[in-house]
Amino acid sequence: MRLPLNARALTESVGPIETFDLKMEGKTKIQEAITIQGEIVRRMKSEKASKEQIDKEVAKLLELKAQLGGDDGKHQFVLKTAKGTRDYNPKQMAIREKVFNTIISCFKRHGAETIDTPVFELKETLTGKYGEDSKLIYDLKDQGGELLSLRYDLTVPFARYLAMNKITNIKRYHIAKVYRRDNPAMTRGRYREFYQCDFDIAGQYDSMVPDAECLRIVHEILSGLDLGDFRIKVNDRRILDGMFAVCGVPDDMFRTICSTVDKLDKMPWEDVKREMVNEKGLSEEAADLIGEYVSMQGGMDLAERLLQDEKMSRSKQACAGLSDIKLLFSYLQLFQVTDKVVFDLSLARGLDYYTGVIYEAVLSQAAVESLSTEVQNVSPSDECVNVGSVAGGGRYDGLVGMFDPNGKKVPCVGVSIGIERIFSFMEQKAEALALKIRTTEVQVMVASAQKNLMEERLKLVTELWNSGIKAEVMYKRNPKLLSQLQHCEESGIPLVAILGEQELKDGVVKLRVVATREEETGVPGEDPRGHEENMQTPPRNGRSLDSNRSPQNWEATC
Amino acid sequence: MRLPLNARALTESVGPIETFDLKMEGKTKIQEAITIQGEIVRRMKSEKASKEQIDKEVAKLLELKAQLGGDDGKHQFVLKTAKGTRDYNPKQMAIREKVFNTIISCFKRHGAETIDTPVFELKETLTGKYGEDSKLIYDLKDQGGELLSLRYDLTVPFARYLAMNKITNIKRYHIAKVYRRDNPAMTRGRYREFYQCDFDIAGQYDSMVPDAECLRIVHEILSGLDLGDFRIKVNDRRILDGMFAVCGVPDDMFRTICSTVDKLDKMPWEDVKREMVNEKGLSEEAADLIGEYVSMQGGMDLAERLLQDEKMSRSKQACAGLSDIKLLFSYLQLFQVTDKVVFDLSLARGLDYYTGVIYEAVLSQAAVESLSTEVQNVSPSDECVNVGSVAGGGRYDGLVGMFDPNGKKVPCVGVSIGIERIFSFMEQKAEALALKIRTTEVQVMVASAQKNLMEERLKLVTELWNSGIKAEVMYKRNPKLLSQLQHCEESGIPLVAILGEQELKDGVVKLRVVATREEETGVPGEDPRGHEENMQTPPRNGRSLDSNRSPQNWEATC
Repeated sequence: MRLPLNARALTESVGPIETFDLKMEGKTKIQEAITIQGEIVRRMKSEKASKEQIDKEVAKLLELKAQLGGDDGKHQFVLKTAKGTRDYNPKQMAIREKVFNTIISCFKRHGAETIDTPVFELKETLTGKYGEDSKLIYDLKDQGGELLSLRYDLTVPFARYLAMNKITNIKRYHIAKVYRRDNPAMTRGRYREFYQCDFDIAGQYDSMVPDAECLRIVHEILSGLDLGDFRIKVNDRRILDGMFAVCGVPDDMFRTICSTVDKLDKMPWEDVKREMVNEKGLSEEAADLIGEYVSMQGGMDLAERLLQDEKMSRSKQACAGLSDIKLLFSYLQLFQVTDKVVFDLSLARGLDYYTGVIYEAVLSQAAVESLSTEVQNVSPSDECVNVGSVAGGGRYDGLVGMFDPNGKKVPCVGVSIGIERIFSFMEQKAEALALKIRTTEVQVMVASAQKNLMEERLKLVTELWNSGIKAEVMYKRNPKLLSQLQHCEESGIPLVAILGEQELKDGVVKLRVVATREEETGVPGEDPRGHEENMQTPPRNGRSLDSNRSPQNWEATC
Repeated sequence: MRLPLNARALTESVGPIETFDLKMEGKTKIQEAITIQGEIVRRMKSEKASKEQIDKEVAKLLELKAQLGGDDGKHQFVLKTAKGTRDYNPKQMAIREKVFNTIISCFKRHGAETIDTPVFELKETLTGKYGEDSKLIYDLKDQGGELLSLRYDLTVPFARYLAMNKITNIKRYHIAKVYRRDNPAMTRGRYREFYQCDFDIAGQYDSMVPDAECLRIVHEILSGLDLGDFRIKVNDRRILDGMFAVCGVPDDMFRTICSTVDKLDKMPWEDVKREMVNEKGLSEEAADLIGEYVSMQGGMDLAERLLQDEKMSRSKQACAGLSDIKLLFSYLQLFQVTDKVVFDLSLARGLDYYTGVIYEAVLSQAAVESLSTEVQNVSPSDECVNVGSVAGGGRYDGLVGMFDPNGKKVPCVGVSIGIERIFSFMEQKAEALALKIRTTEVQVMVASAQKNLMEERLKLVTELWNSGIKAEVMYKRNPKLLSQLQHCEESGIPLVAILGEQELKDGVVKLRVVATREEETGVPGEDPRGHEENMQTPPRNGRSLDSNRSPQNWEATC
């Protein structure tokens, strides 16, 4: 799953670096090259490359340093965020807030509580939960005291929380950042620090009801976020295992054959078969039998057909899974989400801890194509998983038991929303549609047309704040009217209250709709929000004072 | 500032530890003692205690391990969160959400944008920003690649963000967790992982306008959170420095004398003076002069008086600060917040980077007393700072320049809300008033009185979700009506829609107000939220069907 180790890939993955302007372009470039080369050497060492390879890269590094000349002793401060991480600027935050609001309202609509856990856990809490991927865990330095690691996901801390507090029933969501020392691919929305957004139902309940609610939630969220068409693939760990058994896969090969099947969404069957037979040594007959099954997609009908299937019906496990899929679909019908859900025997999510139903939501190709040009340039053999995958989850009945001293199990089913990919999607959509994103929610700007009205502006803005109105005032004593109006246009403030000598004399305030330049005069203290509401809906009659102005293209932040 | 190193303090600071029930109480206790003793040894080593001391504690550790007997080789898994950190359970999250909502609406009312930065920064970004306290920074393990540290506050990442993106004007808030390897005092709301909640205005503006808005924001937030009476102390770094100069404090002693003055809120003047004279070697005359000034409190009048003060007026710096305080108060009057603001010459916030106005908000004693009994037991010499302090900030015009290659300054002023202390306060208040905190926002529970109505319940709950109504249904096929109603009472769900054979035949739904047991019958599809709104306000007429039931004491979550 990791990219092959080579200097080019490493160089690329270092990403953009901002350095100080040394007033000597050349020097800055060399310094940049040194930083990158240093990173390459460190990575090679950490990934245990051959001594020869490392020596070669070290030599390059020394050569670069020599080029810097005499004053390389002076500390060169690099102004950047840590590799694989990013700041969120106000526009990104506005998008993030909007996405979170949609998701959180859905979770709340379904009666979920929320919890939070620390960003780091005892190292031993994470040990043995992620298999191969454990090497991607960030450890904290041993500074005396406990050995700690940054959380790798939200599921293991959730299981630890349940076991520690002896909780056997909870429906909770948790939105928080997790950390993986993976190869970042930031253009594709893959970071070393990223959000996870999990909803889980823990407890012993009647079969498939909570599982169906998880799918209903995915449906509501993806519809609500307006990401274009999508579908939700469903399968069951027991059906996969049963299928492998009846197709003649030896027990000890289930795991590895399963991970090959998992590649079907990004490579054709021929390649998958070749990997099974040539690389993993599966018999061609078994591979062909698997090939027949994994091409099957359907709904409840398919589950019924497979229950009658001569081979499949021989596996007790498969039958249990198939009956549950039938039951699941009956609930999905009541939940009105079968339009998007497909029972797909090729879905084989890799995580060890799944024990029953598994699912994954993917955006339709049309939606994906608008996602990013980068994404389209990704070759199918790249480690980038299914680009359209935006949610996934399943049932894991054994994980909490791993934390319980008596191994007491708490059945769980949950879903994780692929929020970073959704952020990328929304950002790119906003850019493509040239949407202006408001980063504040200010309703009124208090401005003055003449000089020396600072005090009056501050008095009026205070009245507005007192009434709970979002209002701003410029911090200059004598700002120009034009710059005050410009600020409104730039940040999408719909209304401006303009004070002048005359208005003060008359005890009134002139209120202007920024977009149309329509003006009204009112008494201060009157709630100006009525005006703003008028403004939110486009004027029905075209009596705009300035019809040359193009309609504002503002995206509401909330 | 650190607690003296001793085993008792360390033992106490280890906090509660959950261990597996070994079915042998004694063994568990020994294991716990071993964990604590191990922690003591590690801490002593890290704090470079004497070899003698360490050896003594190691001996105790070995003795404890010997007591465990033969099977101590078996790994003892400790189920806990990292020292100084905590999980937030759903109730705590509900309080946290409420507090955040109040604070964020205030920030938005003032037109602030928000940003986010990664939880870790390059180690060198933090280096040299925190002086003595740098030893409290959490470093990440060197796993190859960059050297990273967890952020210690939000101000340094903010300054790094401004310099890196060449931003010269922004009004932003940032709410996020920061990390300090401090001695935790969890009962007093002091953790190693804790929230900061910062609002800052960066930019070159007319004097004191943004500074006044920061104070207005503190006033709005503390009033909005209903924490009881409070006051906001204001001073200026330049007034402090000028005062020290005119009192005859040598230049190189400003810093240390300032930190002694800072203790005035927790020790009497006599002790402060003794420290200045006996420990720091200040002349008694100088100390007495300082004593006169630092006892002064007032408003704009005090600033005016001091501008005329024979000694004080000799310091240019002090005069600049005093003029600004005057100007500040004139704006505070317009902002209607002078009722809580006090110009207090004893306020001496320690942070190096402050260059102008400084301020700190404290809860009144009455409010503090209800905070916690623990708090009252703290002796004044404890390192715990002013228990009532719930917000603080000031002007720092030089920090961003430390990150800019050309040292270009971006003047900033900001405030940090002491959110963890506010959480503790709210939690304890909720407990004291026996408030029931709702952890979900569910409006309707869909229940059935008879068996075999699962499908009908799922259909109805789907209709409610489709209409955006927060609704729940039990995951059992045939739950008892009583257990469905109990769930409503326990989690504060105001309405229950009860399905029965008769209702289904008639095509209606029976809606019951849980608190009063009043029932109404309606047609499904009709919006039941009207009913809930009726329920939110206490019934004006006492026509409750069950007047024996005590009034519900629910705290609205949002």
